[in-house]
Amino acid sequence: MRINVRFAGSGGQGVILASVLLSKAYGLGENYNIAQTQSYGPEARGGACKAEVVISDDEIDYMKVNKADVFVALNQVGYDKYIDTVKDDAVVLINSTLVESDRPNVYKIQATKRAEDMGKPFVVNIIALGALTRLMPKVHYPAVEEEIIEQFPASIASVNLDAYKMGYDIMDEDLKNLGYKTGFGDARQW
Amino acid sequence: MRINVRFAGSGGQGVILASVLLSKAYGLGENYNIAQTQSYGPEARGGACKAEVVISDDEIDYMKVNKADVFVALNQVGYDKYIDTVKDDAVVLINSTLVESDRPNVYKIQATKRAEDMGKPFVVNIIALGALTRLMPKVHYPAVEEEIIEQFPASIASVNLDAYKMGYDIMDEDLKNLGYKTGFGDARQW
Repeated sequence: MRINVRFAGSGGQGVILASVLLSKAYGLGENYNIAQTQSYGPEARGGACKAEVVISDDEIDYMKVNKADVFVALNQVGYDKYIDTVKDDAVVLINSTLVESDRPNVYKIQATKRAEDMGKPFVVNIIALGALTRLMPKVHYPAVEEEIIEQFPASIASVNLDAYKMGYDIMDEDLKNLGYKTGFGDARQW
Repeated sequence: MRINVRFAGSGGQGVILASVLLSKAYGLGENYNIAQTQSYGPEARGGACKAEVVISDDEIDYMKVNKADVFVALNQVGYDKYIDTVKDDAVVLINSTLVESDRPNVYKIQATKRAEDMGKPFVVNIIALGALTRLMPKVHYPAVEEEIIEQFPASIASVNLDAYKMGYDIMDEDLKNLGYKTGFGDARQW
């Protein structure tokens, strides 16, 4: 079992942090090996920052994500750059405030709009992470909450917890109306 | 050219953040490819968290650090776990408040003591990063400062900038009294 996850967005959208939180929550909640990576330098320039997570029940020697099972795009540049390297049955989640997609079966979250409505533009990544939690197998909600509390000073942990819950709840509501099939089957069965 | 950097410490000591800041500063300041990674899961438990950076002038396909050119140990568990996988001529920097080493030519920074003296225990990693900046080729001080400013809310960016400067200045002073030879030669020549 190996799940390749890729987040893409601009530098300021917090894709690394979302990726780190996911990794820690995954790694601590289950008996998996997790590798979390990002690249910088010439290839990372131009507004498409990416961060990757590999989840495996075996030791991870090759940490790179070639074909993604899960792809989260927070901006259009990142979406366009990486959409051709996701698997056919991948879970694709887009920040639909900023990203347009003509792919069928794409999950959407208005992350930027919701963050702006809260007056906290920096929680875009956490709203998306909440929505992703609803879609991914074996990401335990309380484990992510714990990591958020550990990550942030108390003064901003609570707004991030609110953002996380909002993203999760919106996706939970949406799923009741969607019939998408993903590589993971029904996330609720995991 | 390839430089393998490994940070080790406990979960709360901020090794991931130090590693991310180093990567971003490196990647943006020079024309290198940078891969930054961490692992979670069974192998990462027990107080020895590690984060790694690979710096290369070529594309990085293999992101793992097997033998480190640069090793920063913030606690004893991390030091003990990884000291046998550093190269003979590696730059080794220890948080000497907590780590004992009988290796010759080890660079030392009292990171925990200095952070406690500031009343800001959470800057241990940034003090160490300041000291490391003095030791590493082509890590540009202003580039790291920029990343610190970008990383933190304004209210805590300034204390981190102070911690960064302190770590750098202490190591700069120490170098005047040390004659260590490292794989990089004299860091001042880079």
